[in-house]
Amino acid sequence: MKVTDLQVIPFSIPRKAFRNGKCLEATTVTQTLTKILTDQGAEGYYFGGHGHGDQDGMTADQINVLTGRLKQMLVGHDPFDREKFWHWMWVANIPENLLSVVDMTLWDLQARAFGVPVHKLLGGCRERVRAYGSTFPNMGSPEDYAAHALACKAEGYTHYKIHPYYFWDPETGQSDPGRPSHIEWDIRCCQAVRDAVGDHMVLSFDPWGTYRTYEDAFIVGRELERLGFYWYEHPMNEYRVGPYEKLARELTIPILSPEIAAGSIYTRFDWIARGASDMTRIDILRGGITGCIKMAAIAEAAGVKCEMHMAGFANLQILGATSEDVCTYYERGLLAPGVDYDTPQPYLEEICDPMDKAGYVTVPTEPGMGYKINWDYIEAHRIDR
Amino acid sequence: MKVTDLQVIPFSIPRKAFRNGKCLEATTVTQTLTKILTDQGAEGYYFGGHGHGDQDGMTADQINVLTGRLKQMLVGHDPFDREKFWHWMWVANIPENLLSVVDMTLWDLQARAFGVPVHKLLGGCRERVRAYGSTFPNMGSPEDYAAHALACKAEGYTHYKIHPYYFWDPETGQSDPGRPSHIEWDIRCCQAVRDAVGDHMVLSFDPWGTYRTYEDAFIVGRELERLGFYWYEHPMNEYRVGPYEKLARELTIPILSPEIAAGSIYTRFDWIARGASDMTRIDILRGGITGCIKMAAIAEAAGVKCEMHMAGFANLQILGATSEDVCTYYERGLLAPGVDYDTPQPYLEEICDPMDKAGYVTVPTEPGMGYKINWDYIEAHRIDR
Repeated sequence: MKVTDLQVIPFSIPRKAFRNGKCLEATTVTQTLTKILTDQGAEGYYFGGHGHGDQDGMTADQINVLTGRLKQMLVGHDPFDREKFWHWMWVANIPENLLSVVDMTLWDLQARAFGVPVHKLLGGCRERVRAYGSTFPNMGSPEDYAAHALACKAEGYTHYKIHPYYFWDPETGQSDPGRPSHIEWDIRCCQAVRDAVGDHMVLSFDPWGTYRTYEDAFIVGRELERLGFYWYEHPMNEYRVGPYEKLARELTIPILSPEIAAGSIYTRFDWIARGASDMTRIDILRGGITGCIKMAAIAEAAGVKCEMHMAGFANLQILGATSEDVCTYYERGLLAPGVDYDTPQPYLEEICDPMDKAGYVTVPTEPGMGYKINWDYIEAHRIDR
Repeated sequence: MKVTDLQVIPFSIPRKAFRNGKCLEATTVTQTLTKILTDQGAEGYYFGGHGHGDQDGMTADQINVLTGRLKQMLVGHDPFDREKFWHWMWVANIPENLLSVVDMTLWDLQARAFGVPVHKLLGGCRERVRAYGSTFPNMGSPEDYAAHALACKAEGYTHYKIHPYYFWDPETGQSDPGRPSHIEWDIRCCQAVRDAVGDHMVLSFDPWGTYRTYEDAFIVGRELERLGFYWYEHPMNEYRVGPYEKLARELTIPILSPEIAAGSIYTRFDWIARGASDMTRIDILRGGITGCIKMAAIAEAAGVKCEMHMAGFANLQILGATSEDVCTYYERGLLAPGVDYDTPQPYLEEICDPMDKAGYVTVPTEPGMGYKINWDYIEAHRIDR
């Protein structure tokens, strides 16, 4: 089988964003569908590739890399030669999200060609994954977080993760670009949530690298330990590994990092070897399915958990092929009061991750990624012709 | 699809062993074929599982574990759930070679079901692999090694690996159980081979853990450096990691270890993290294809080569799915003067690894592992009925 074409189809979708405590008015944004075609009719698909999971379409310049240089690499080659392309793209310094899109489209292609979901090609491990509810940042007052956590608990979530206050002053409810974090408010938020949900709900915390000093990170970490939080994610910027080594040494709460550091498995191996990651983290736009599965192997060998970042179809396929002892949770979100997470995007018949009352999400069993695509919607909303 | 049965078929094959400088008389030994069957007719096969690669059949007690406990684990489950079984078997402390047999039979099954060679499921990376000629130990005098190395060079080999003298006195040509190694002879052997083949042939050296002191290992290593050898494999026993850390620090020649240490990826991650492995090594009976592919990912992330141990179909499938920058060579052997390596075993139509004049072996492209099985031979030589 040979690749004959790579196409990226941009199309418009509605989006209601949530920002700084409020649901915004609906707007229209661009989603992208990447397609790889072959001489034998097999096709592979991937939605998104920019930003959060498979939710955000690629930009025009990113599309140009795919339909230019990357298409040229693929055409005439066997679409099952993923490992060859993966190495080629890393050496060629292709942006991580774009090489990830190619990798995932090829996984979808092979799994569709054989009529199985991707996780059964990787080697199936489980049929469902425990989810956690992952909040938007700046969701409101500590009491708003507490009420939301309780609502999530009532829905079935057994684990709730707080993204606290970034570049936003929770006192005034105003944007605060000069002040990336407000640790006293972050602590108050964690306390309010713990008080509301009781001792037994799993809670985690991700200030997304906004603590600019080791001391801020340490003070909040000690409080999280006191409150019995499960993990402490990405407190400081991830360009410096030394402060993470120190934090992992000085705190007992597991430090979950790097979250967004570039360099996929290469960076993350280094962090583990240096003792900077009590738990590690990667996502499907930092090496694709191939990168995440390699990372799970590294984490398993090291005895370090690898918690997959973000939501989406590819995440679930990866989790379906990994043990809960290595990759325990699925990140369901981002959530906030008033955000409609459970209605599918109009280009899909179903969301990837309906959650049951026990707090589990079932790994999609459709061939490939598991998309049920509404082709009519896509055709009717193409913005490239 | 569900597994319905696991069978192990023992059958007799001729074997001409080579030991202590001589080809022995032909004898008959037992090979085993492991079969996993499904309710949809798909079947998977694996030959061997004991000792060297896929060449040695399992013993009766090993067969009992497979047809007892492991069959019970598999029946009724999806044969594509390899990752689930892999974790189960490690936790259950199933012997590494037996869990490897299950894993590889399941890979063969899926690849056959989809009509592709295993490496195309893993993600293809290359079509051919550079081979090295790997000698039997105790092959004769240093001059015998030198002549053999020259013959290998003439055949196309670009890399030659010496297994030197173990438990055998090269002076008397007699077995010498009280003296595991004779380093002065090992050095003489390496010198003779280097002199014979010239400066440009890649040479490696594997005393297979027979050096009982750090000092012996160090002295030989320094001489290998002087002779421009490429790697220095498994000089000391692999139960103690500390001496390997020291040797890797003190010598510049890459230390390739652990070779035979138990514990698959878990042990090997630890060695890399401790700086004890300049290069790492694993084989298909220490975790199956799944274990080797995980190990290649770890090695790639660490920037450490992973040289696959032993010859065989599964090795070639793994190498077909890895980069030469991670797993460079294929071990072709064991070889010695008078050993017929190129005639297939009677249960196979072809050997897995014919080598071309440039010293490359082509990755098999038949579905599954790539076996071309002579079923009539197996049926006629079954020893279980």
